Amino acid sequence: MEFKSLFETYKNAVFQKDIEAFASIFDEDVQVFDMWGQWTYDGLAAWKEMAKGWFTSLGTDRDVVTFDNIQMQETGELATATAFVRFTAVSEKDEELRYLENRLTWIARKKNGKWGILHQHTSGPVDFETMKVILRR
Amino acid sequence: MEFKSLFETYKNAVFQKDIEAFASIFDEDVQVFDMWGQWTYDGLAAWKEMAKGWFTSLGTDRDVVTFDNIQMQETGELATATAFVRFTAVSEKDEELRYLENRLTWIARKKNGKWGILHQHTSGPVDFETMKVILRR
Repeated sequence: MEFKSLFETYKNAVFQKDIEAFASIFDEDVQVFDMWGQWTYDGLAAWKEMAKGWFTSLGTDRDVVTFDNIQMQETGELATATAFVRFTAVSEKDEELRYLENRLTWIARKKNGKWGILHQHTSGPVDFETMKVILRR
Repeated sequence: MEFKSLFETYKNAVFQKDIEAFASIFDEDVQVFDMWGQWTYDGLAAWKEMAKGWFTSLGTDRDVVTFDNIQMQETGELATATAFVRFTAVSEKDEELRYLENRLTWIARKKNGKWGILHQHTSGPVDFETMKVILRR
């Protein structure tokens, strides 16, 4: 399995709202600095709970994920990636409803030949005047 | 030079407002996803400009940096770290004025025996209701 295949798995898992496929690309000990709501998610169980809440909140909509400006480093058992991510919500009828963008950092390690994300960090920059997050580039 | 020494150099450079010491721990090609204002800083020149603005804005105050919950990965030429960072502004008389916290991710590579940060990502989580950043754990 190539490290870069994690992008495709992430994208497909989110579109299908498939919790197990989503979880499959993360390490059991994953630590996530997520854009929303809490300082850290520690461990895969906590992260899967987040994903369940996310997928449920979409109702009959789906999130289409696209990655832009991917930059990767890889050496032996350690790999990293940075990218811009766009989440576009589409309706059952395939209408684009809304979108937002993130900045993404991944740190992954290889165990038994399989890459797992050990750390994910997503965010948007914050406007210093309003303290509000900027959701589009 | 050990990878973990970058934390001490960062802390000292910020306290001293020493642009060159600050810049010394970053790679020429650094890409920064900073907490404030813009989507990305590409390259050391842009990042140094940010630091100049930051240090100047402090006036006679100084920022005391402390790192908490540091987690590191290192293998050959690639190393990563995650941490919580506290920036405490102190006056000339050493009074604590205010503080805020960040989540920090570093990706570094070794060139000619020297570690340089290739990617830095800092953020605070965003409250979903208000869209405002949360600045303290």
